[in-house]
Amino acid sequence: MRYGSMFGPNITFLGIPECDVAEANSYKDADVVIIGAPFDGGTSYRSGARLGPSAIRGTDYLPHDGSRPHLATRMDGLKDIVVKDAGDVEMFSGDINKSCAALEIVVEKVAKSGAIPVILGGDHTVTWPNATGVAKAVGWGKIAILHFDAHADTGEITFGSLVGHGQPMRQLIESGAVKGSKFFQIGLRGYWPPADILAWMAKQEMRSYEMSEIVSRGFDVIMDEVMKNAIKDVDGIFLSVDIDVVDPGSAPGTGTPEPGGLTSRQLLDAVRKIAIELPVVGMDVVEVAPAYDHAEITALLANRVVLEALSGIAARRKAIKDGKPVNHARPLLEDR
Amino acid sequence: MRYGSMFGPNITFLGIPECDVAEANSYKDADVVIIGAPFDGGTSYRSGARLGPSAIRGTDYLPHDGSRPHLATRMDGLKDIVVKDAGDVEMFSGDINKSCAALEIVVEKVAKSGAIPVILGGDHTVTWPNATGVAKAVGWGKIAILHFDAHADTGEITFGSLVGHGQPMRQLIESGAVKGSKFFQIGLRGYWPPADILAWMAKQEMRSYEMSEIVSRGFDVIMDEVMKNAIKDVDGIFLSVDIDVVDPGSAPGTGTPEPGGLTSRQLLDAVRKIAIELPVVGMDVVEVAPAYDHAEITALLANRVVLEALSGIAARRKAIKDGKPVNHARPLLEDR
Amino acid sequence: MRYGSMFGPNITFLGIPECDVAEANSYKDADVVIIGAPFDGGTSYRSGARLGPSAIRGTDYLPHDGSRPHLATRMDGLKDIVVKDAGDVEMFSGDINKSCAALEIVVEKVAKSGAIPVILGGDHTVTWPNATGVAKAVGWGKIAILHFDAHADTGEITFGSLVGHGQPMRQLIESGAVKGSKFFQIGLRGYWPPADILAWMAKQEMRSYEMSEIVSRGFDVIMDEVMKNAIKDVDGIFLSVDIDVVDPGSAPGTGTPEPGGLTSRQLLDAVRKIAIELPVVGMDVVEVAPAYDHAEITALLANRVVLEALSGIAARRKAIKDGKPVNHARPLLEDR
Amino acid sequence: MRYGSMFGPNITFLGIPECDVAEANSYKDADVVIIGAPFDGGTSYRSGARLGPSAIRGTDYLPHDGSRPHLATRMDGLKDIVVKDAGDVEMFSGDINKSCAALEIVVEKVAKSGAIPVILGGDHTVTWPNATGVAKAVGWGKIAILHFDAHADTGEITFGSLVGHGQPMRQLIESGAVKGSKFFQIGLRGYWPPADILAWMAKQEMRSYEMSEIVSRGFDVIMDEVMKNAIKDVDGIFLSVDIDVVDPGSAPGTGTPEPGGLTSRQLLDAVRKIAIELPVVGMDVVEVAPAYDHAEITALLANRVVLEALSGIAARRKAIKDGKPVNHARPLLEDR
Amino acid sequence: MRYGSMFGPNITFLGIPECDVAEANSYKDADVVIIGAPFDGGTSYRSGARLGPSAIRGTDYLPHDGSRPHLATRMDGLKDIVVKDAGDVEMFSGDINKSCAALEIVVEKVAKSGAIPVILGGDHTVTWPNATGVAKAVGWGKIAILHFDAHADTGEITFGSLVGHGQPMRQLIESGAVKGSKFFQIGLRGYWPPADILAWMAKQEMRSYEMSEIVSRGFDVIMDEVMKNAIKDVDGIFLSVDIDVVDPGSAPGTGTPEPGGLTSRQLLDAVRKIAIELPVVGMDVVEVAPAYDHAEITALLANRVVLEALSGIAARRKAIKDGKPVNHARPLLEDR
Amino acid sequence: MRYGSMFGPNITFLGIPECDVAEANSYKDADVVIIGAPFDGGTSYRSGARLGPSAIRGTDYLPHDGSRPHLATRMDGLKDIVVKDAGDVEMFSGDINKSCAALEIVVEKVAKSGAIPVILGGDHTVTWPNATGVAKAVGWGKIAILHFDAHADTGEITFGSLVGHGQPMRQLIESGAVKGSKFFQIGLRGYWPPADILAWMAKQEMRSYEMSEIVSRGFDVIMDEVMKNAIKDVDGIFLSVDIDVVDPGSAPGTGTPEPGGLTSRQLLDAVRKIAIELPVVGMDVVEVAPAYDHAEITALLANRVVLEALSGIAARRKAIKDGKPVNHARPLLEDR
Repeated sequence: MRYGSMFGPNITFLGIPECDVAEANSYKDADVVIIGAPFDGGTSYRSGARLGPSAIRGTDYLPHDGSRPHLATRMDGLKDIVVKDAGDVEMFSGDINKSCAALEIVVEKVAKSGAIPVILGGDHTVTWPNATGVAKAVGWGKIAILHFDAHADTGEITFGSLVGHGQPMRQLIESGAVKGSKFFQIGLRGYWPPADILAWMAKQEMRSYEMSEIVSRGFDVIMDEVMKNAIKDVDGIFLSVDIDVVDPGSAPGTGTPEPGGLTSRQLLDAVRKIAIELPVVGMDVVEVAPAYDHAEITALLANRVVLEALSGIAARRKAIKDGKPVNHARPLLEDR
Repeated sequence: MRYGSMFGPNITFLGIPECDVAEANSYKDADVVIIGAPFDGGTSYRSGARLGPSAIRGTDYLPHDGSRPHLATRMDGLKDIVVKDAGDVEMFSGDINKSCAALEIVVEKVAKSGAIPVILGGDHTVTWPNATGVAKAVGWGKIAILHFDAHADTGEITFGSLVGHGQPMRQLIESGAVKGSKFFQIGLRGYWPPADILAWMAKQEMRSYEMSEIVSRGFDVIMDEVMKNAIKDVDGIFLSVDIDVVDPGSAPGTGTPEPGGLTSRQLLDAVRKIAIELPVVGMDVVEVAPAYDHAEITALLANRVVLEALSGIAARRKAIKDGKPVNHARPLLEDR
Repeated sequence: MRYGSMFGPNITFLGIPECDVAEANSYKDADVVIIGAPFDGGTSYRSGARLGPSAIRGTDYLPHDGSRPHLATRMDGLKDIVVKDAGDVEMFSGDINKSCAALEIVVEKVAKSGAIPVILGGDHTVTWPNATGVAKAVGWGKIAILHFDAHADTGEITFGSLVGHGQPMRQLIESGAVKGSKFFQIGLRGYWPPADILAWMAKQEMRSYEMSEIVSRGFDVIMDEVMKNAIKDVDGIFLSVDIDVVDPGSAPGTGTPEPGGLTSRQLLDAVRKIAIELPVVGMDVVEVAPAYDHAEITALLANRVVLEALSGIAARRKAIKDGKPVNHARPLLEDR
Repeated sequence: MRYGSMFGPNITFLGIPECDVAEANSYKDADVVIIGAPFDGGTSYRSGARLGPSAIRGTDYLPHDGSRPHLATRMDGLKDIVVKDAGDVEMFSGDINKSCAALEIVVEKVAKSGAIPVILGGDHTVTWPNATGVAKAVGWGKIAILHFDAHADTGEITFGSLVGHGQPMRQLIESGAVKGSKFFQIGLRGYWPPADILAWMAKQEMRSYEMSEIVSRGFDVIMDEVMKNAIKDVDGIFLSVDIDVVDPGSAPGTGTPEPGGLTSRQLLDAVRKIAIELPVVGMDVVEVAPAYDHAEITALLANRVVLEALSGIAARRKAIKDGKPVNHARPLLEDR
Repeated sequence: MRYGSMFGPNITFLGIPECDVAEANSYKDADVVIIGAPFDGGTSYRSGARLGPSAIRGTDYLPHDGSRPHLATRMDGLKDIVVKDAGDVEMFSGDINKSCAALEIVVEKVAKSGAIPVILGGDHTVTWPNATGVAKAVGWGKIAILHFDAHADTGEITFGSLVGHGQPMRQLIESGAVKGSKFFQIGLRGYWPPADILAWMAKQEMRSYEMSEIVSRGFDVIMDEVMKNAIKDVDGIFLSVDIDVVDPGSAPGTGTPEPGGLTSRQLLDAVRKIAIELPVVGMDVVEVAPAYDHAEITALLANRVVLEALSGIAARRKAIKDGKPVNHARPLLEDR
Repeated sequence: MRYGSMFGPNITFLGIPECDVAEANSYKDADVVIIGAPFDGGTSYRSGARLGPSAIRGTDYLPHDGSRPHLATRMDGLKDIVVKDAGDVEMFSGDINKSCAALEIVVEKVAKSGAIPVILGGDHTVTWPNATGVAKAVGWGKIAILHFDAHADTGEITFGSLVGHGQPMRQLIESGAVKGSKFFQIGLRGYWPPADILAWMAKQEMRSYEMSEIVSRGFDVIMDEVMKNAIKDVDGIFLSVDIDVVDPGSAPGTGTPEPGGLTSRQLLDAVRKIAIELPVVGMDVVEVAPAYDHAEITALLANRVVLEALSGIAARRKAIKDGKPVNHARPLLEDR
């Protein structure tokens, strides 16, 4: 039986139809399957991200009617492609290994079906099973990760654990699921990790854009460079968005906020472009901790990150089908 | 008798003198008359904007002494022109038609006196009576609307009503009060309205700048284009500022926040420029919902939007009188 | 088609089954039908109660599985009787008369079916249509109202309106739906209404217990007196709980908080006793304004008020069926 | 010129008329004069009480019309006696001695006029000038202080200062303004002061009721004892209410909250009884720190403490004039 | 090396001296050792209790000087007995079994040294290792648990786990660490657990006082009964205080708040009496989740629960030493 | 004896070692000494900045281990130079002159030792003693002040006081400690000070960059100009950062927020560049008022401002030692 929501009322993302991962038929036509990962056992400081999936699914002032016509792309990311909500995976925060294993199975199953899994975290630990599951389905070592985050998440043992929200990227590289050289990190800043871990990252040939480089060279320049390089030699892109990549002023509802981040506008624009230009095969949005949010602005931002991606995916598919490129910056009312 | 404040203590905008719309003498010398529109019966989601007028009037850390010397324009928007506060219009949120009618009468009366009505909302429903009242006084179909907002507000029947905070712009166009081609919308984004309404808007020849166009072309370029086009063939400008045009990080206290908005700096600069360069004949600032605010930052921003406009209006009048243009970017201490 | 939730995700009260008032079959077996009344156009100060129904339905840390075994009564108020959720009635806050009319029709329909309507407000305006609808079904002038509130809600025209959250009790008396002498108000305090309205209330033979009388004579004494008198000469009891009857410390999330109220424990105990001892034929819980809540404690209290009533109703029905009275204060583990 | 409000808009307590202490005529007919003491330079931990006067004056959901008919006493504490608002005394928080001196002069002047000064704090430092000013007018060493507080406020030098919110009661005793034996402290609890200060207090013959004694013997018993003893050998009663006497659940908005306090109901009932039964000659309500409040519940409680006292004072005067005692627990609608 | 604080600055409880559990000498003279258990991986809904230890240690407006003279008992619970702070046990929330095992070792070690371990949670999972550790030291099956809580915490597998914050009491009984008949639960209420678990509890001969029984019979009567029965046939008392036993109005900062709880006054009085009258051999205070707190009132309450116990323990030891009973309700200034 | 923390637990900045200003040996090797100035008696509106030092020291999600390797500069600002924490200076907010005098002595002593004093405010009053103390040590009239702020802080008597948070810059100029021509103010905006004070500022040859000039000319252009001019003819730079220079969206926790400020990114980048390029001899970070903060984002920003400066200072010293300039915008993983 479909598990539904682990916490709170059983809802789907903005009212889209349900599917059940145990019933292949229920999502065989899906372009995208949304999966909740209500887990925060991997956080190294403030917890609370377990309530992220319900917040991201349910926060919106518009009717929860399974339709969202997007002004910028002119696509309905919930209607122009088939998007279903598989509910949450049961993830007991007190058992990180069991929870990650359960999630990986679901993600892999969805990815193998041909649908794009979009996972709503949960803390960043979940990118380990998420990208692993996708890599198993799409190609081991054959995906690139575009990683928006204030933190590199390439840490070593923390609090005695090899698994946690500071380590997923290391595990993906060490397992071979994703090559170090196919990691593109955008928005890093602050005081972590220390030099030895950075050296390890360099050795893996990761490419990490710290905010001072982003400011110096310009965000658009960086994004163009990332998008050009990411797609080389891979079969697909996994997009991982830690909401703390955005400045705490616009995303206070998170566990480890680091001042000096991107604007929410920059993040939305980048996500849209990636989804339009690149073959996204999986995505997660993580680290929304509603207890620290104010007036739901962080949850709403995460909701919009998902929608921006879905709209972009829909635009990309239409462009491919129509055989003409997406018209990026058309005035809103032109050709209506 | 002057109605005063509908909710809370009877205060005026930062301590300026009172006037009473029923007493023509009380504002016959006024350049600007401030009017409270404490109404939120038209909101489609979170209510609370009825407490906007008292929050906008009363939020400031400086003495409430009816004086605000502005660093950027070197004008005192409360002293260098005559600004009076007419108090609130009684607007029972449970009766939207009656409330709008009552407001329209007051706005028209003020506009006919030659003063610029500046209305403090309340939800965006009020722009229907506001701009109607001004159009009746200044010229039916002869004003342009510069509309800062995340939303187009051109909707059709919602919750069974033709009137509400999602529909004022449609009504103004349909009544003929304002021509569709004289609508300039800045800051739109997100997932509303749907295509059929956008098609209607296009047909009305509205000009709506979505955020992705603004980012692509640059905010300054857009503002120059808007300002150049708005003034053609009209007798005046109505400036309508929905506080949700600003990113929720800097304006959380509102009913329908949409991530990815303007910065507060961009809004303030734009409002100042408009007030200096164009003949503003009416203005409203709407959708401040104090219950969702934090540390009063949204109310304070709305207060500053009003002051930026008043300072600009004062600067414009001085420039006209002196016969020399406003010196825009003079260093603060130059020529003191 | 069932209307669902007017705001936010479409959920039912703690996961109970849906019904549709337009489909008589869908609730023909129901003992209780829950109805959302998401309206706050009648508030005289802070709005926000429109988001009450979704908050009351969805706030609980336990699984939303349509089951709530109650420790105090040993009944499952959601399982031992049949409880269904009819969703919200569309109630545009800007049109109070239309909204009340729509609600009254639904309530009457449910009450006529034999089910007990339990309405989740919304502001207290809704008790006018709620009790009217029930009176039409159960007996005009033949129900008593047990009214927990800080305020008498017997006001006259306010903000130009005869309808609003300060007037429902007056309207019920004036229409004859409920006799003045069958009104029992518990928890009144503070500075409203003025003497002329109190005189009118006295003339109607209402019985209103102000907090100083409650403290002097004791809450239990008062409740016994109320329960004994309420049931005389009526066919049923309508229970109306304004959450502001509780002290603002335990119920901050409301529009017109008045210090010095009941404890939440007192309210829960009273509601349980009433539901067990008296024939409740209708109920509402009103004035939960989530924007002013903290950590959801007010919404949770309102949720528990509903559950306490449902558990009591279940206990009463079992007692009647079994022919033996409810055993009130049995130790929790006795006879398990 | 009348000073008005030191912070924020210039408002009076619930809209009552202004008076100016510099103009004797402006309050010569007043029974009560309200004075703001917006000072928090004496706090030993969280500051913020300087915004107390504006919060206490302006927090109420009812119209700010200078009228408050009280259900419990059937008196209008703002209309049945003459109450005026003298505005704030300018009290720079960085200069405690100068600020206290300025306040004392105003309080003494008001008290000498025959009016009862009711001072809105500010931190508890102000009781030193408040009671000193009243003692100078009413009789040096001839008033009793009924002091509701979690803390004894009889401390010695703190942070190098002899003056502060932990020391006012010591200073009043040491100066002789109030005799130690005429201090009645209700609600003390927690972990301050230490034994040496308690010994000093004992030596002064103060009577301090700690919460464990209050719970053991009963609040009503204690209040009867206090009221009986307080009135002996004095010419009047000064009532000092530190809002932290109430449990932090109902009064979170304060600087030094101590769990386990009175209920707000107990405080309101006690204040009303004191005002009815005893000759109150001065009063203050202190330590409301709005920055720590939630949904304004603490400010509203303080507002009601003032109103409960004013209503009681009005009832006492009427009873004296009519020559018949106050009828304490009459049902609300009896004899209307 | 002493572990210190797992999260945030390294602080001790109100400034008391540190000790290190790895260095027996560092606490060989201690009467009480405070241990932080910063774990929330066992929570079934809102997380956040991991930040409880730092909040409980650091929340107080008084100087953090390792001294707290208690008004009610006239003892300094930090000075009159030797209290040391062992810092936190490293408890990764993602690994519940490992974390519990680590905590148990520390608690047992402390208890075996003769000191009373006082553990600051953390979620209620920790009572399993806490009471197990104490039972190993004091006597397996030879301690009674006085358990203040809204919930019985005797659940079965939840989210696939046998360990969690809903199950500790079951595990203690099943292991034999504590006999079912020596469990005394005070404050239960609401809708959990279901009947089968209650039946199991009854079979274990637990004694659970639901709030309706407490209200009916009186809190003091219940406490006397509990204290009399708890001490029979045991070698010591373990006191477990879940802060959610208090009404959410006074303790909002917790994960699973249940309306209708004890007052904070009742809890403090009960804890003090227990510590004075009974031989407490271990204690924990759990479920403080600072993210949901307001103005730190819940953290402060938990801090006071600890202090009330320490003061009581000191009073008990002095009474035993002096050979005369504690004088419970002496007026504060009597015999000073 | 070292004073420690005036409020709350005794902690050092992120766990760095303590020093004691009374013991010269304790900081004789220090490059930087951190000093807390917990004073808010000089604020003209909201108080609360006295809790700034503890918030700035203790807010960080990373371990408080006295180490912070900085991604942008590749330096550890706490390890690569010697940084010690002298605790707070006792500053009673009720006595501004005494408090400022006490602070000045400590700052001067530290500066004379050769260490850079970094003072954590407290309100902006403290820059008067801070810069005075540094000027006494480094050279009277021989330092420049780089002043980030929304306000010029050059006011005259306010609330009867010559000293306060609106006047420090005037006092520094009038005393001769700092020349007017060596003041560089960045980020001014809004409605204060009035023209006469601006004229005085102009006369002193201050250079004040209002936001409209910053936007017109570009932030980087302004910073280059400031840095080039500031260093002329001085022996060192004092950096004073009022957190309100940042937009209230990212820095709500302050007393006098003015909309339209810098982004947190801009501030961090500017501080880093200044610390790298110029000889900073003193610094303060002021006006963090935690009571108005949300999710600690303002405190965290202030913490990062300090760290950015310390990292830059370390980088500067290394560059000087190594004889090669700082490599500003190297990609994060290059040359690792």
